Amino acid sequence: MRLTRISLEAPYLLYLGDCPDETHAKTGAGIAHWRPQHCAGQMRLDGCPVDLGLPELNVETAMDAGVKTVVVGVAPVGGQIPEQWLPQLVALAAAGLDIAAGLHTKLSDIPELVAAAASGNAKLIDVRVPPADIPVGDGRPRSGKRVLMVGTDCAVGKKYSALALHRELQRRGIDASFRATGQTGIMIAGEGIPVDAVVADFISGAAETLSPDNDDNHWDVIEGQGSLLSPSYSGVSLGLLHGSQPDAIVLCHDATRTKIDAAGGDYPIPELDEVIDDALRMARRTSARCFCAGVSINTSMMDDFEREMYLSKHTTYLGLPCVDPVAVGMTPIADFLLEYS
Amino acid sequence: MRLTRISLEAPYLLYLGDCPDETHAKTGAGIAHWRPQHCAGQMRLDGCPVDLGLPELNVETAMDAGVKTVVVGVAPVGGQIPEQWLPQLVALAAAGLDIAAGLHTKLSDIPELVAAAASGNAKLIDVRVPPADIPVGDGRPRSGKRVLMVGTDCAVGKKYSALALHRELQRRGIDASFRATGQTGIMIAGEGIPVDAVVADFISGAAETLSPDNDDNHWDVIEGQGSLLSPSYSGVSLGLLHGSQPDAIVLCHDATRTKIDAAGGDYPIPELDEVIDDALRMARRTSARCFCAGVSINTSMMDDFEREMYLSKHTTYLGLPCVDPVAVGMTPIADFLLEYS
Repeated sequence: MRLTRISLEAPYLLYLGDCPDETHAKTGAGIAHWRPQHCAGQMRLDGCPVDLGLPELNVETAMDAGVKTVVVGVAPVGGQIPEQWLPQLVALAAAGLDIAAGLHTKLSDIPELVAAAASGNAKLIDVRVPPADIPVGDGRPRSGKRVLMVGTDCAVGKKYSALALHRELQRRGIDASFRATGQTGIMIAGEGIPVDAVVADFISGAAETLSPDNDDNHWDVIEGQGSLLSPSYSGVSLGLLHGSQPDAIVLCHDATRTKIDAAGGDYPIPELDEVIDDALRMARRTSARCFCAGVSINTSMMDDFEREMYLSKHTTYLGLPCVDPVAVGMTPIADFLLEYS
Repeated sequence: MRLTRISLEAPYLLYLGDCPDETHAKTGAGIAHWRPQHCAGQMRLDGCPVDLGLPELNVETAMDAGVKTVVVGVAPVGGQIPEQWLPQLVALAAAGLDIAAGLHTKLSDIPELVAAAASGNAKLIDVRVPPADIPVGDGRPRSGKRVLMVGTDCAVGKKYSALALHRELQRRGIDASFRATGQTGIMIAGEGIPVDAVVADFISGAAETLSPDNDDNHWDVIEGQGSLLSPSYSGVSLGLLHGSQPDAIVLCHDATRTKIDAAGGDYPIPELDEVIDDALRMARRTSARCFCAGVSINTSMMDDFEREMYLSKHTTYLGLPCVDPVAVGMTPIADFLLEYS
C-alpha cells in the first residue's frame, strides 16, 4: 500500500509530561475538546498543573483501557522531548502503544524510543513528516463536495472554524469529514497530511489526495493553511486552494489583525471583499463555480456590543454571513453553504 | 557558513556518456550555448553520436585544462546513471573533480562514486537537492531591481527568455545576474536554488535568498517555475512570485499551447491579458508597483507570416512588446523594462 496520509489509531492517551501551563497544552486540549470520544485518558508527571479532566492512566491501566496511541499533547519549549519524559514514553512504547507527536525534533531521532518501539512493535508517528508517496496534482475533477477555509493570515482560526463547521454539518445529519492539513488538526482528526511540510511540487497533489472522490452529497471540510496574502506562506495556500477544488470557501479572519504577520515587512490586510475576490479568482481556475459561504471572524478581544456592530456591519457590507465561530457559531455559514451549493 | 544555494565551480567538463541523440543532451547543449566560456571540453563514451563541438578531454587533459566540475549534461532514460558511465565518472571523481548532476537518482546514492569522491576530495553535487538552510520568507523589502519570468504553463520558455533577457541587459552594459530556479538553469548559471524541490513552507524564503539585496541599478533576471494557472504547480509559482518581489514580470507563453498541461483535467489557457492581470494582482502584494514588461512567446511552429501576424496582433491588443525570444529577440522587452522601471 502506498502511504499517502498520516493515520493515528484511537483510543488515545494524551501525554502531558510536566507541561507548565495550558498555553503549551493546546494540542491536548484541542483533542479533548473536539474528539472526547477518542480520549481514553491522560498521563502526567508528578506535579504537572495542567489537567484536561480525563481519567489518569498509567501503562497498565492504559493497556486495560484499550489505548492504541499515545499522543504528545504538549509543545515543549525548544521543540524537543525533555529528558524527564523519556522513561514514561519508553515504557509506553515498549508496551506496544504507538507514540504520536508533532515536535521539531523527531521521535524517530531518539534512540531510546526507537529501541522501545521496536521491542514493543509500536509505531513512532511524527505528524510533521509528510507521507512518502504523495503524487503531483493532476487537476482531475472529483466527485463529492468540498469547502476550504482560507485566511487573511496565519493563526486566524481556520482550524477552529473548519472543526466547528464540520460539527454543525454532522449535527444536521449531513455526511461530512474534517480534513486536516496541519499537525494539530491531524492529531485531532486522527489523520491528514501536513501540507506545509511536503515538497513544493507536491502541494496540490497533497490536497487532492486529502479530499478524494466521494459520494455526491458528502462534504469534506478542509482545514486551510497560511494565506494567499502571506509573503511567507502564500505558495502553500494556493497549492492547497487549487488541489482542494473547493465548491465553496469560508474566509477566516481575526478582527484585531490589521497587518499580515511577516517578520520583515509592512503588509496591511486589505478589505475583506478584496481578499475574497482574490481567493475566488484563484479558486475558480480549478473549480469554476466556487463561491464564498461566509466569513468566520475571531472577535474574542471585543465586548458584546463591539462584536455585534462589527459582525453586522460586515454582514451587510459583504452580503455574506459573518460570524464569530465561538460567540455566534457556524449555523449561518452552514445555512448559506447548503443553500447555495 | 550556512548553505543557502547550490554552487558549481567552473570550468566545466560536460559529460555526455553514450547519449543517443541531442534531445537527451539538452542540458549540456544549454550550458555550451549560454556559457561557452565555462566549458573546457566534453567527454563521451566511444560511439556517442552527440557532439557539442567542444574539445574532447580525458581525465588527464581535463586536469591539465584546469577543469573543476564535471557536469552530467544528459538526461538518461529512467533518470539513473547507466552502469557503463561509472568507470569514467569514478575516475574523474577520484582525480579530484567535482561531479554535478540533476538526475532522479542521486549521485550520493551510488557507493562507487561516493568512495571515489572521498578518495579524490571531490564533491558530488545533486542540483535537484535543495540547500539545507533556506529560511522562511520574511517579506523584507530589498534593494536592487528584479524581473521574474511568469508562465501560462510549464515548459513555455521561461528559462530561455530569462537567459536571453539577461544577455541583452549585459550587452547594454547593465549590471545583471541570471537567477536560476530549476536544475538546468542552475547548471547553466553555476548556482541557484531548485525552488520546486524545497519544502512548501520555504518557497518564498528560497526566492528571497536567491535574489538578495543588491546595488540600486543591478537587475536580477529570475527564471520562473510552473504557472499560477497550473493545477499541479501553482503553489511553487506564487511563492516564487511573492518572494522575488519583482519590479517587473515578463509573461512567457507558447503560441500553440491552448490548454494547461495537467494530466487529469481540461484547463484552457485564458486570454493573455487575464493571465497578466492575475499575476500582477498577486505580485503587487509584495511589490506594489510591479508591472508587466512584455510577453515572450515561442512561435517556432509558425511560419514567418503567421508569426508576424500573431505577435503584432498581441502587441496591439496588450499594449506591451510581444516577441519570440529566438526569432525576434528580447530587445523590445529590455527597452520597455528599462523605460518604465
